[in-house]
Amino acid sequence: MNVLFVVCDGMADRPVRELGRRTPLQVAETPNMDALAEMGITGIVDPVAPGVPPGSDVANMALLGYDPYKHYAGRGALEALGAGLDLAPGDVAFRCNFATLGPSGVVEDRRAGRIRTEHATRLAEALRSVAEEVGSQFGIRIEFVPTVEHRAVLVLRGEGLSRAVSDTDPGEAGRPGRECVPLDGTPEARRTAEIINLLSERFRRALEAHPLNRRLPKPANAVLFRGAGTLPRLRTLRELYGIEGACISAVALVKGVCRAAGLRLLDVPGATGSYNTDLNAKFSSAVEALREGADLVYLHIKATDLASHDHAVGRKVELIERIDKALGSALDALDLEDETYVLVTADHTTSLRTGKHEGDPVPVVLAGPEVRPDNVDRFDEISCARGGLCRLRGTDLMPVLMNLLGRARKFGF
Amino acid sequence: MNVLFVVCDGMADRPVRELGRRTPLQVAETPNMDALAEMGITGIVDPVAPGVPPGSDVANMALLGYDPYKHYAGRGALEALGAGLDLAPGDVAFRCNFATLGPSGVVEDRRAGRIRTEHATRLAEALRSVAEEVGSQFGIRIEFVPTVEHRAVLVLRGEGLSRAVSDTDPGEAGRPGRECVPLDGTPEARRTAEIINLLSERFRRALEAHPLNRRLPKPANAVLFRGAGTLPRLRTLRELYGIEGACISAVALVKGVCRAAGLRLLDVPGATGSYNTDLNAKFSSAVEALREGADLVYLHIKATDLASHDHAVGRKVELIERIDKALGSALDALDLEDETYVLVTADHTTSLRTGKHEGDPVPVVLAGPEVRPDNVDRFDEISCARGGLCRLRGTDLMPVLMNLLGRARKFGF
Repeated sequence: MNVLFVVCDGMADRPVRELGRRTPLQVAETPNMDALAEMGITGIVDPVAPGVPPGSDVANMALLGYDPYKHYAGRGALEALGAGLDLAPGDVAFRCNFATLGPSGVVEDRRAGRIRTEHATRLAEALRSVAEEVGSQFGIRIEFVPTVEHRAVLVLRGEGLSRAVSDTDPGEAGRPGRECVPLDGTPEARRTAEIINLLSERFRRALEAHPLNRRLPKPANAVLFRGAGTLPRLRTLRELYGIEGACISAVALVKGVCRAAGLRLLDVPGATGSYNTDLNAKFSSAVEALREGADLVYLHIKATDLASHDHAVGRKVELIERIDKALGSALDALDLEDETYVLVTADHTTSLRTGKHEGDPVPVVLAGPEVRPDNVDRFDEISCARGGLCRLRGTDLMPVLMNLLGRARKFGF
Repeated sequence: MNVLFVVCDGMADRPVRELGRRTPLQVAETPNMDALAEMGITGIVDPVAPGVPPGSDVANMALLGYDPYKHYAGRGALEALGAGLDLAPGDVAFRCNFATLGPSGVVEDRRAGRIRTEHATRLAEALRSVAEEVGSQFGIRIEFVPTVEHRAVLVLRGEGLSRAVSDTDPGEAGRPGRECVPLDGTPEARRTAEIINLLSERFRRALEAHPLNRRLPKPANAVLFRGAGTLPRLRTLRELYGIEGACISAVALVKGVCRAAGLRLLDVPGATGSYNTDLNAKFSSAVEALREGADLVYLHIKATDLASHDHAVGRKVELIERIDKALGSALDALDLEDETYVLVTADHTTSLRTGKHEGDPVPVVLAGPEVRPDNVDRFDEISCARGGLCRLRGTDLMPVLMNLLGRARKFGF
């Protein structure tokens, strides 16, 4: 038996005025998710705890069964893992954005107009020697690796570093970039902040001079750093449950969490992490991986979250309907009678109104051979609150699944 | 956006034989609470944990978001805070009752016939010099302050004190007053017990001699001490969420918990903490405070609890109906579409049959701009158990509210 674990990023929402005070999931036509609800069991899940808005790192960590209050050690390291970098204990990694700064140092666009990946790659090439130079000055190695669009990863490798440093990213446009400051009194934090500030300045100089930037409508003339983190030490799902799992996601951060959990990363052409992502390709790859023997496939879809961040009501509804269609094809190819459990949920609520992650619970549906069905037949935030799973925590889902797979370890005799 | 947080003390109940095995909330006509249920989301809440009967101090602490298992440090200090006294770390405070003792030392009435506040105040004046004298004997300062009816507060201020001492209050009438004994092996606990026993005896002598007591049908000829406590160190709601909150309660203990949480105490003329309390005045003050900019008003109503303690079935039903009416006027003055969240709950179950706090969950209803409505349309213990909030803990409510107000801090990125 195996599991398809589908996580639609930020899919859960609050009642939306433009939708007649209903949620996108209530409004969207989702015959396949509804069919899962009808045959399976539903509930609501607090990714971390009631009322606590989780970041995607924390939320996906929790959904994979790891208590983020115990294990979370910053986003940067997860992002780096997801970008394919390996980290050693002591390395400190940052999440980075190419950004557009105005002449006075104010951040005009935190994503440099969502710069195209190939452009970011070219700019990053020019930054490699700058990073090496600053690194050698401090006796460490510095790697700067672009990922998707404006996103990149920075890793400081060596001794005497700390993740207790602040972000240079002000978090929203219209504010000046910040200085990196140590967050505790250690010499390691002081030194790390010094490195980041020097790097920040040198990167800026190199980017200003780059010919590509003259052609871009929003020049990527700075790199913002945030989320300093070190490697989380997780026991893998193989160690915990003896399963072989795989992950499909276009988001480096989620890939990083999955890698930390010991999941194999599947590369799906056409999976972009954006609106244009190829959902059919992702679901097909998931089905294939299950056929080839994976015990669990963690399938993550980013675009729903983007729609909320962009306050794009219609787009979010449409995306949910597209996901439902792609899910439908997968369901046709899977045997939910005897072989496969399918779980669909969101990693958190992202409000179309606020554009932010919120602490409201998310709906969950679980169907497959031996679930105890309830009498909910719609998949949305309101219907699932009446479901047979009642209200769970994010970290509960993996044990619930492993129990159904016969992989749970007995406690006591 | 803001919140009106209504807590009706001990309002929740078990099915009552005299009410055809229904609860007072099921029987009472509560069109306004029911309207909130219909438009909002409902659930049940374990103030502390399933099956654990909480004291009012513990319950209100939990409802304000503080884990009492971490933060509770005895009732006395909270009572003292609520009576307007300030406490320093190390001070030990007690909750006190004027009581009627029979000739053999047996407690005949733990509340001295619910002695009137002005009588208690006159008696307390006579005890001031006694307290000073005993204090100086031990090199500490002793304050004895009457609050409402038979209730008073004692504070021991100085070095070498401990809250690890037992109560002299036997807890029910018909038993003899107890000696105060140390609850651990420290010299501080031994010394504190010694102080209380001496004080107890001197108070008794002074009260026996007081002319007022000759006129009282149940002479207040003793003071019983209980709930030794020290100052709880809570991060205020302002520190935690950046909100400005206010509290309306006539009960010193609840006021103390609210003060410890950083809430401003609003004085409402006519709020007595008893059956004759002016509910309309309390709700009007709450609405006014919200209009004047408070982010949260914690409105506590004591009388429902008294009715249960007094086994007064009809009275409890009638009180719930009176609360519902006063709530209705407040709802008319509030904008639940865009501005205000209203939460109604109880701090615990108080059983009309047993007259005691019980560990059953309490119903909760939450209505306001962006809640996800459920299909519950009645506010009572049974209906709300089918609600969309499912079953929460007391400490979950504040994060849930702060999340809706946009005041919750994100965990992770």
